[in-house]
Amino acid sequence: EYRRQRQMCIRDRLIGGSTITIQFFDLEGLDGKRFSPFGWRVRMALAHKGLEASSILEGVGFSQKYKLEFSSQELVPVIKDDDMIISDSWDIAVYLEKSYESPTSLFGTSNDFNQVKFISSWVDSQLHPLIARCVVRDILNVISPSEHEYFRTSREKRFGKSLEEVVADRENTRTTLKQALYPIRKALEIGPFLGGDNPNFSDYAIFGAFMWARVTSSFQLLELSDPIYNWRERMLLLYDGLAKNAPAVDI
Amino acid sequence: EYRRQRQMCIRDRLIGGSTITIQFFDLEGLDGKRFSPFGWRVRMALAHKGLEASSILEGVGFSQKYKLEFSSQELVPVIKDDDMIISDSWDIAVYLEKSYESPTSLFGTSNDFNQVKFISSWVDSQLHPLIARCVVRDILNVISPSEHEYFRTSREKRFGKSLEEVVADRENTRTTLKQALYPIRKALEIGPFLGGDNPNFSDYAIFGAFMWARVTSSFQLLELSDPIYNWRERMLLLYDGLAKNAPAVDI
Repeated sequence: EYRRQRQMCIRDRLIGGSTITIQFFDLEGLDGKRFSPFGWRVRMALAHKGLEASSILEGVGFSQKYKLEFSSQELVPVIKDDDMIISDSWDIAVYLEKSYESPTSLFGTSNDFNQVKFISSWVDSQLHPLIARCVVRDILNVISPSEHEYFRTSREKRFGKSLEEVVADRENTRTTLKQALYPIRKALEIGPFLGGDNPNFSDYAIFGAFMWARVTSSFQLLELSDPIYNWRERMLLLYDGLAKNAPAVDI
Repeated sequence: EYRRQRQMCIRDRLIGGSTITIQFFDLEGLDGKRFSPFGWRVRMALAHKGLEASSILEGVGFSQKYKLEFSSQELVPVIKDDDMIISDSWDIAVYLEKSYESPTSLFGTSNDFNQVKFISSWVDSQLHPLIARCVVRDILNVISPSEHEYFRTSREKRFGKSLEEVVADRENTRTTLKQALYPIRKALEIGPFLGGDNPNFSDYAIFGAFMWARVTSSFQLLELSDPIYNWRERMLLLYDGLAKNAPAVDI
C-alpha cells in the first residue's frame, strides 16, 4: 500500500521531468572524510537502491547540529526525500526498502527484518564498542580543531578515562575483537555476503563499523589471512568502489 | 536435485506402506532429561518438519559414546534416517530442510542460510559460555553419579577452576547475560520470532541454550519483564508444548 503510493509519487516526479534527489545529512570531518558508521549504513543502502549518485551530501560536523533542526532531533544520518524527513539509519533503510525497487532486496523477504535487526543490533552493542577502543583517539585527526574539545570531553565522559588511555591497550582489544567476529567468519563460510549471494543491510551494518575505522585510523583491525578481510575488500569495491574511493586517512 | 531425489525416496517408503522413522541420538541424563542445547536445536527442527513424533530417541549418556561408533565421531546429536547418517546440529538441520517439506522453511530463502549461521554461531560463541557459567554445576544433579567424575574433570579443565567456583559469581554473570541478549530483544521488537512471523532455526539455536538451563537448573536466567521471557514462553508451547512438557528439574 505504502510502497505503491510512494512509487506513484516517484513516477509522477519522473514523468514531470525531474529526477529523484535525496538530501543526505551525514557526519563530515576534514577533507570530506565521512566516518559515521551509521552514515555508511545509509550510504551503502542508497547505493544498493541506485540512489547514491543522485543524492546530495549535506555534511554535518560535530559543531553543526543546527543543520539538523528541521528533523526535530540532533543525530545524523538524516535523509530528506521530497517531503519525507527520516532519521535513524534503521528507519531510513526500511523507508528506502519500502519506497524504492532494486534488483535485490535490502532485507530479503518480509520475514528477514528480524534477523537483520539482530545483526545490526549486535554491531551496535558488541562491535562498535570494541572498534571505538581501537580508533577513538585517531578521530581527533580527522575533525576540525575547533571540535576537539567537544569530542574529547563527551567521549572521555563516556569511557571514564582519557582517549589516550582508552586506546593504549588496543593490541589486546584487537585480540578480543578477533574472537567477537567469530559469527561473521562462520556466516562467510556459507557464502560471500551475510545476505547470501548479494549484500544486504546486515553487510552494510557490519561494514559501516569497518569504514568508521578505515576513514579515521591507520590501525589495522584485521589480519590478511582473516576471511573477513576478503569480505571487506568485496564490500569496498561495491558500486564502482564507492567506499574504496572515499576520502580516508593516508595509510 | 538432492531434494527431489530424497523426496522420491520418501515417497517410495510411504508407498511401500512404511512410515518415516528417524533415529535420533541425543544426550540423555537421569529420568529422561535431555539437556544438550544442540540436541534441542535438532529436536525443534524435527518438530518443525513434522517428524518429531515419529522419530525414535536413542538416549546417549556421557559414558555411552560407544553408541555413536556407527557415525565415526563422538558427539551428539546424530540422526540416522534410512541409510543417511548425519552428525552436527547445523548439518542435520540443513539435511532436514533439503529433504523434507514443511509449511514454513527452517531457514527462509536460500539466501538466509548465512544470517541463520551468524546467529547460531553467536549462540555458540557468546551465549553458551555465559549460560554455562550459570548452570554448569547443576548439570551434576541430572546425570548418573557414575558420570560425575568425567563431567567434573573435563569441565574443570576447560574452565580452569572448580565448577563451584565457576558458578559462585552467577548473579553477576546474569547481568552480563542480560546485556549480551540485547540483539535478541531488538529483533523481537519487530516480530514474535527471529524468523519473523514463524520460528526458524535461529529461534531454535537460541532456544536450545535456554532449554539447556531449564532442564538442568532452577536458576532463573530471565526477568519476567524481559521481552525474551515471553518469546521463550511462546517457544515452550510450540508443537503441543514439546519443550514445556519435557522432563526438567523441579522448580
